[in-house]
Amino acid sequence: KIIEVIERNETRAQPLKGKNVLITGGPTQETIDPVRFFTNHSSGKMGYALAEVAKELGANVTLVSGPVQLDTTSGIELIEVTTSEEMFEAVTTRFQNQDIVIKSAAVADYRPKHVSKQKLKKQDGPLVLELERTKDILKYLGEHKEQQYLVGFAAETENLKEYGKQKLNKKNLDAIVINDVGNKNIGFKSDQNEVHVMTKNGLEKDIPLDSKVEVARNLFEIFIKDMAGETH
Amino acid sequence: KIIEVIERNETRAQPLKGKNVLITGGPTQETIDPVRFFTNHSSGKMGYALAEVAKELGANVTLVSGPVQLDTTSGIELIEVTTSEEMFEAVTTRFQNQDIVIKSAAVADYRPKHVSKQKLKKQDGPLVLELERTKDILKYLGEHKEQQYLVGFAAETENLKEYGKQKLNKKNLDAIVINDVGNKNIGFKSDQNEVHVMTKNGLEKDIPLDSKVEVARNLFEIFIKDMAGETH
Repeated sequence: KIIEVIERNETRAQPLKGKNVLITGGPTQETIDPVRFFTNHSSGKMGYALAEVAKELGANVTLVSGPVQLDTTSGIELIEVTTSEEMFEAVTTRFQNQDIVIKSAAVADYRPKHVSKQKLKKQDGPLVLELERTKDILKYLGEHKEQQYLVGFAAETENLKEYGKQKLNKKNLDAIVINDVGNKNIGFKSDQNEVHVMTKNGLEKDIPLDSKVEVARNLFEIFIKDMAGETH
Repeated sequence: KIIEVIERNETRAQPLKGKNVLITGGPTQETIDPVRFFTNHSSGKMGYALAEVAKELGANVTLVSGPVQLDTTSGIELIEVTTSEEMFEAVTTRFQNQDIVIKSAAVADYRPKHVSKQKLKKQDGPLVLELERTKDILKYLGEHKEQQYLVGFAAETENLKEYGKQKLNKKNLDAIVINDVGNKNIGFKSDQNEVHVMTKNGLEKDIPLDSKVEVARNLFEIFIKDMAGETH
């Protein structure tokens, strides 16, 4: 009887036991020359929190991370990348065996068309930098997904829910997490976050301001419900 | 007699006692929109090492630092900035009272001409980004210097000594420290460095591979000799 209770608790506590979960986090850096690059303000904290919580829930966790100043606890497979191209390779080659994929990394949409091997000398006056689109990792995953439950993030500063819903449909996602990155109190460098989550099956929830780990716990609760076909 | 020896040692050990030394370090970040920015690979370690050594030598130290992941020890006045424009303000408004100014920060030469208050939506196809020159802090200091001993850094990947000598003359510096940033073993993220230093008065020295703190000690030895009018 006691063993049964413990087992039930174990099962309840580890709903992702045996599941493969891949999470991306952090920014990418896009090289201009050996010194200069483009990047963004992602600290990786949300991705690392999601990875910790996935591990807590029993999953086999792979974390594909851009350059950040964070440590992972043991038991998480960490794949470190720098550019969007490396992120694309790291994620797509590991996609097939995953049960859940959460793309919280802030991957650059553009990169310099020409990469200089030598440091560019400055000139007088203005300069025009030609940029080209990087590969759209989320779109690729949406097009190639089979059993995978695919979650995207939308970092927006305006029309949050509208852009989020568009992205959910356009990228063939199962769920989208919408982040107001214009709000200085949350997101990016902060240890706290406040998000809105929508699923393709119609679950929708505001997750109020809390630590990124607590927000991650709330998000996984929604994803697990949604995967089980619960509708509220 | 003992007191005399101690005092002599104290004096010898603190040749910068009472001197005001301003050091800049780290990168700058140039905003594109609330999410994206331009930056460079400077870790700030060389600037922070110079600040520590200046303090060790008895100086009143001000460290103007771009965004880095480093701590200063107490007794150093830390001024944190983000953009090249903020760096310009922080340095020029504090320039007048300084005895030595060492510009080891990697300040962006260019910044986006238009800064967007909202996150730019991505579009299909390539994009052209217009960049404008930032204010040249070192040039400004060279034009306005009076008693200040002014040191610049040149981070180059080719023709190192030639570019360095040009910069020394063109910017009206007292000394220049030349860094080979194409060499992966040194510079930027590394805790070690290897530099070449030249002064206007003709002192010149290769400082071999060593910790950045040791390199900083060697550099100050040259600067102090040079300020005293020693020629070798």
